[in-house]
Amino acid sequence: MTRLEKARRGEADDAVRAAAQAESIDPEALRQGVADGTVVVLRNRKRPSCRPVAVGAGTRTKVNANLGTSKDRVSLEEEIEKLEVSVEAGADTVMDLSTGGDIDAIRKEILRACAVPLGTVPIYQAVIETVSAGRPMVEMKPGELLEVIRRHGEDGVDFVTVHCGITRRSLDSMKSSNRIMGIVSRGGSFTAAWMEYNEAENPLYEYYDDLLEIAREYEMTLSLGDGFRPGSILDATDKPQIEELITLGELAARARERGVQVMIEGPGHVPLNQIEANVLLEKRYCGGAPFYVLGPLVTDIAPGYDHIGCAIGGAVAAAAGADFLCYVTPSEHLGLPTVPEVREGVIAARIAAHAADIAKGIPGALEKDRQMSLCRRRLDWEGQIEAALDPQKARDLRESRHPEDEEVCTMCGEYRAVRISNKVIGS
Amino acid sequence: MTRLEKARRGEADDAVRAAAQAESIDPEALRQGVADGTVVVLRNRKRPSCRPVAVGAGTRTKVNANLGTSKDRVSLEEEIEKLEVSVEAGADTVMDLSTGGDIDAIRKEILRACAVPLGTVPIYQAVIETVSAGRPMVEMKPGELLEVIRRHGEDGVDFVTVHCGITRRSLDSMKSSNRIMGIVSRGGSFTAAWMEYNEAENPLYEYYDDLLEIAREYEMTLSLGDGFRPGSILDATDKPQIEELITLGELAARARERGVQVMIEGPGHVPLNQIEANVLLEKRYCGGAPFYVLGPLVTDIAPGYDHIGCAIGGAVAAAAGADFLCYVTPSEHLGLPTVPEVREGVIAARIAAHAADIAKGIPGALEKDRQMSLCRRRLDWEGQIEAALDPQKARDLRESRHPEDEEVCTMCGEYRAVRISNKVIGS
Repeated sequence: MTRLEKARRGEADDAVRAAAQAESIDPEALRQGVADGTVVVLRNRKRPSCRPVAVGAGTRTKVNANLGTSKDRVSLEEEIEKLEVSVEAGADTVMDLSTGGDIDAIRKEILRACAVPLGTVPIYQAVIETVSAGRPMVEMKPGELLEVIRRHGEDGVDFVTVHCGITRRSLDSMKSSNRIMGIVSRGGSFTAAWMEYNEAENPLYEYYDDLLEIAREYEMTLSLGDGFRPGSILDATDKPQIEELITLGELAARARERGVQVMIEGPGHVPLNQIEANVLLEKRYCGGAPFYVLGPLVTDIAPGYDHIGCAIGGAVAAAAGADFLCYVTPSEHLGLPTVPEVREGVIAARIAAHAADIAKGIPGALEKDRQMSLCRRRLDWEGQIEAALDPQKARDLRESRHPEDEEVCTMCGEYRAVRISNKVIGS
Repeated sequence: MTRLEKARRGEADDAVRAAAQAESIDPEALRQGVADGTVVVLRNRKRPSCRPVAVGAGTRTKVNANLGTSKDRVSLEEEIEKLEVSVEAGADTVMDLSTGGDIDAIRKEILRACAVPLGTVPIYQAVIETVSAGRPMVEMKPGELLEVIRRHGEDGVDFVTVHCGITRRSLDSMKSSNRIMGIVSRGGSFTAAWMEYNEAENPLYEYYDDLLEIAREYEMTLSLGDGFRPGSILDATDKPQIEELITLGELAARARERGVQVMIEGPGHVPLNQIEANVLLEKRYCGGAPFYVLGPLVTDIAPGYDHIGCAIGGAVAAAAGADFLCYVTPSEHLGLPTVPEVREGVIAARIAAHAADIAKGIPGALEKDRQMSLCRRRLDWEGQIEAALDPQKARDLRESRHPEDEEVCTMCGEYRAVRISNKVIGS
């Protein structure tokens, strides 16, 4: 029996109980969420040492950090450092998107070093192995892709992105659309190219039942990828995107029926005034499945600062009901991130997630702000640093200023005001 | 006649016409906005060389950068550098909050170097001059404060923050409130302390007509300060804050009646789910006057990253109708910002403003994103850098990565996907 099937029978497995305890929420409420499919608890059956993480309604908004080698840059050491920095900075999960070097070996090493749930996008490896074998990527066989997914499951990968929602019909819709950016999802573009060349249906759509069996076997959560996510805010919420979302909703229902946990991936580049609609449509079409968004990035014109554009979009999305934010770093659209940029990306996403949790009324969220405010009122610097989301950064910045007078150290003079205020209205 | 009075008679003065031209909007529409009080055009009568800037409904969301000396750090050179960096980074206005050194001389120098509208908070100087004269700050005379305001007008200051909305009644309400942070506005706390000590009404409330005469004389826009803005998200939208806002609305009506342009300052620390209500209340109580917000900061726990917390809040506020964003830097709550932090603060606020302008449908806003997206589709790197909000940052980040293969340079592989997409669905 799978975690979802047990939950439906009223049983919270140890992963559900541990995830509930980690968030101080009622395990019975979490079990009900898993049973309803509005929550997933990430942990592969083969990886009992992994700290299980709940994603979905009623839980804290989670943050994922991406890492992985590329063809040009293969350093296991650097990826392990990114992993450690991400988890230290508070990432709830990590995805290994490696496309360079010995991908199997790198994944196994990352899994060994990783205490949190790990996700992958297996189609990257399937394509690379096809090309390495001297064949054009479009000659990848469906069975080869499923075999790679099984290998990831066997290794202990906790969730996989699978672009199952691109179909002949939605691809036709894409081809007749007037999108500026076309397909910007790497998995989505491979899938579309494969379908065109082979004049065939998307293998992950056609063999979806086989995929579900693999996911069942390893208790691997499916993250149904949005291959047609917009790559420009001008393309957001268009017909191809929403047609794919509707298909993902149907596939999510089939996954749950087969006892497989499922979440839905979402955009992408979305203007501020379309974000709530995107969340509403996902919840409506996908039976309330957890929504895992990349961004959303609210403007295209700020390369170098996309972590800020995504913090804006992520906060608004999560406040509207999105459950899981994939981080974006300052170097998005420009290059692979450095280790400090990975850290910056995680923190920016955590700020967005926390701001949304306050708006959502997640228990305990506002309490952190209360503690900080109480320290500020007391002009207690050490307390403020301890209450900070990133204490090290707060301490470094503070200490770099050497203020002579603690009360007049800020631009707005807030602390001097607080001192006067305490006298006037009582502290 | 003042700019507002002329606008009411159907006349757009040269400042209104220049501000309309700068934004490519119809001067007649802008004149109507000024006449209605939903727009202000900032430019002191004494400073014809200043580039006039429109703030309010139907115009681009504007960004202000604060600078100024403190008791501990008096360097005109550094403040001029902050001014230059702010304007270069795209700040629409600057406020000089100097509290250290020869404040008059510093203001004059900054005004000389400043091509954009400049604002001040005259009460800071009035208090410092009282203390410098050997008297306790609470013995400042109302006439002394008005004299400082006149001096600022005479020098060419384009807008002044005046905390006119704190009254005996709202101060009683503050004293009986259960706020965590009390009063965090420096001007607000001075005003409250003065009122308590003197057992008198707020001088700027009592002598408001005199203040209006000074503002008229110099065509100085009043920015009615929110002395009771919340300093913790737990204090947001409470009774003292909204009582003061109602008073500000009454004072705004009196200003307009006297031909004086007026905008309203707003919070501050506000949770994401209360921001729209704050904008709505301001527009409702203040006759649609332009809303100038500080942040809003959506969480208290991210010192070191308050520019990100404020980008989230600022974008949501501006999309809901706020007109003017005061920047916040990464060192807010920790110390005075360095020059690079000033730049970072301006850029973060501009991202928020632009994201909101797209949502508001400000003409021309989306076009910038379209240009960037077209460059991305063509994999045109030079075009992308030119289309960036901060081209230098985009170029520096890009060049620091030395990608060997331009198509696989990003984490998400977006460019490789675009190349494939262009082949599959036609470019």
